[in-house]
Amino acid sequence: MTDIDTQTPPQADPAQATSDHDTLARATSDHNANPVLVETTRGAMVESRHRGAFAVVDVEGRVVASAGDTERPVYARSAIKPLQAIPLVESGAAEAFGLGDGEIALACASHRGEPRHVAAVTAWLARIGCSVADLECGAHLPTNERALAELLGARETPHAAHNNCSGKHAGFLTLARHLGLPTQGYIGLEHGVQQRVLGTLESMTGLDLGAAPRGVDGCGIPVLAVPLGNLALAMARLADPADQPEPRQAACARIRAAMAAEPFMISGTGQFCTRVISETAGRALVKTGAEGVFCAALPERGLGMALKIDDGAGRAAEVAMAGLLARFDLLDAGHELLAPRLHNRAGAVVGELRPPAGGPI
Amino acid sequence: MTDIDTQTPPQADPAQATSDHDTLARATSDHNANPVLVETTRGAMVESRHRGAFAVVDVEGRVVASAGDTERPVYARSAIKPLQAIPLVESGAAEAFGLGDGEIALACASHRGEPRHVAAVTAWLARIGCSVADLECGAHLPTNERALAELLGARETPHAAHNNCSGKHAGFLTLARHLGLPTQGYIGLEHGVQQRVLGTLESMTGLDLGAAPRGVDGCGIPVLAVPLGNLALAMARLADPADQPEPRQAACARIRAAMAAEPFMISGTGQFCTRVISETAGRALVKTGAEGVFCAALPERGLGMALKIDDGAGRAAEVAMAGLLARFDLLDAGHELLAPRLHNRAGAVVGELRPPAGGPI
Repeated sequence: MTDIDTQTPPQADPAQATSDHDTLARATSDHNANPVLVETTRGAMVESRHRGAFAVVDVEGRVVASAGDTERPVYARSAIKPLQAIPLVESGAAEAFGLGDGEIALACASHRGEPRHVAAVTAWLARIGCSVADLECGAHLPTNERALAELLGARETPHAAHNNCSGKHAGFLTLARHLGLPTQGYIGLEHGVQQRVLGTLESMTGLDLGAAPRGVDGCGIPVLAVPLGNLALAMARLADPADQPEPRQAACARIRAAMAAEPFMISGTGQFCTRVISETAGRALVKTGAEGVFCAALPERGLGMALKIDDGAGRAAEVAMAGLLARFDLLDAGHELLAPRLHNRAGAVVGELRPPAGGPI
Repeated sequence: MTDIDTQTPPQADPAQATSDHDTLARATSDHNANPVLVETTRGAMVESRHRGAFAVVDVEGRVVASAGDTERPVYARSAIKPLQAIPLVESGAAEAFGLGDGEIALACASHRGEPRHVAAVTAWLARIGCSVADLECGAHLPTNERALAELLGARETPHAAHNNCSGKHAGFLTLARHLGLPTQGYIGLEHGVQQRVLGTLESMTGLDLGAAPRGVDGCGIPVLAVPLGNLALAMARLADPADQPEPRQAACARIRAAMAAEPFMISGTGQFCTRVISETAGRALVKTGAEGVFCAALPERGLGMALKIDDGAGRAAEVAMAGLLARFDLLDAGHELLAPRLHNRAGAVVGELRPPAGGPI
């Protein structure tokens, strides 16, 4: 990957690293061993450990905090949906089709397939002259337990609007309509929609992603690997896009406002992203991604955060993000999201998840 | 933990370790970094990495193969259900109540809540004068998707027989009945049933577990932490109990025969344990446990295996176990379980899980 930005790309500063573990681990034949960011306890013992890396970066690209290898490219997965939504707004498509906060939040969402999510996506598709059949994301059962029970209780099968990414895909279809592009095949990297998304990611991360490792996401769209430091920079720019050209600045402001106004649409009942955005009143715009990725934009602070749990565990990514937010005074130090309890099947508390004492968070 | 066995306890032999990573990592302030045992790929890149440790031990306690820290105590969780079933058989309870292969296999099982599992446990409970209400494991939805859809489609709620541990608990109740002990409270460490289970674990692992770190399992019973090397020794003794007193020998043979005869009861349709036991015709008696633990007894080889994925991921534990089985010629090198494919929601192959090239497996 080549740096095509005039700014200094974020680099992990060894003086700021909380642990010198990486340097030692790099000397071995094994992959770099990132530090333990989250551990799980059961009774008297730590049962499991999650390693990972994180970067907190300001809009100048300065690393405010980091641990682990922040230069290793990672697939950000759904954690960058707020960035992928920028072309939808920036192009004028959102305005042309009269999208409100709910739709724009859904474009940034990994929703749980609750009835409100599914109904909103379905209505949105109708408004742009499309239907669920135009979504190319595939179907899966709702991840919300009540929605799951309702769907299966009615002996129905899930359709593509139940897919947690259906709002993002509705946004892609809206952009295709607005640009006069064919809707079929909108998930392909060569399609005009994905090319606009790619261009946005390049300018927000400050990288030429033409040679970035690539793959296919769970919902069929391209994924491109980006170092955590650059992901954090992109989130900082979403938080404070003052150095971006004007249509970008307004688009970022619109997306931030929609996420803050409709936190339920970002995820769902009782979920981490919905709770944090709601409880911080939009001061922490957090977004989860598959395989242990989490990103955040902190508008008041002009900071971006990005983290990856090496093993891909979402449970650890949530606790690590909560810990980082507490460190930057966006959650109380005693907030339950920092040390969620583990229950057994009978409901008894048997352990917890937490950042380890003396660890980098 | 004190070694109370006359045999030499298994020790990781540095000369046999595949990587010297641990030694280096131990010099840091971080926890020991075990080697990467399994990686996931997506497109052109490794996306996530799972570290862990394993031990393969013979009945003399000799380490045949190992990697990572095999002395760190781990909760074996459900991976030692075949050991926990020993008192049920050894006491004569299984014979007294006329248990067949299906029931004994269920006592060793983490089943998927399929109708055959639930019906068999329910009938078994009736035979010992108990019912689902006597199970203290709690309830959860079936993990088999079809069984889940059938249950919710009938607008039913799960009961304790759907719990993946219900067969183990039915075994505990059977033992309580046979010993004339109260059935209520059978999950408590001080109850006669759990004391017998504890004594069996001590003699099979060769350890005094009185001071072992302990906690509560997902199904409510005690969990005690045991080093992987000792878990592997216990599985080797299950495979070949020639050095054990006679009632134990016969009990181990009965359990091995039941697991081999009823692999479906051990897990369920299409599941790893069921497939491996079935495809190897019982030459690899494998058992999964929560939080990334896997054990195996290899009767023909007189070997035991135990592994733990540090981060607790079951997906990685399966691939690591498949890799170890291939190394010991129990699965073909090209078997799909060694490198299961990852699909996206639309069904396309987007990556795979695999032991890394040059890694310790």
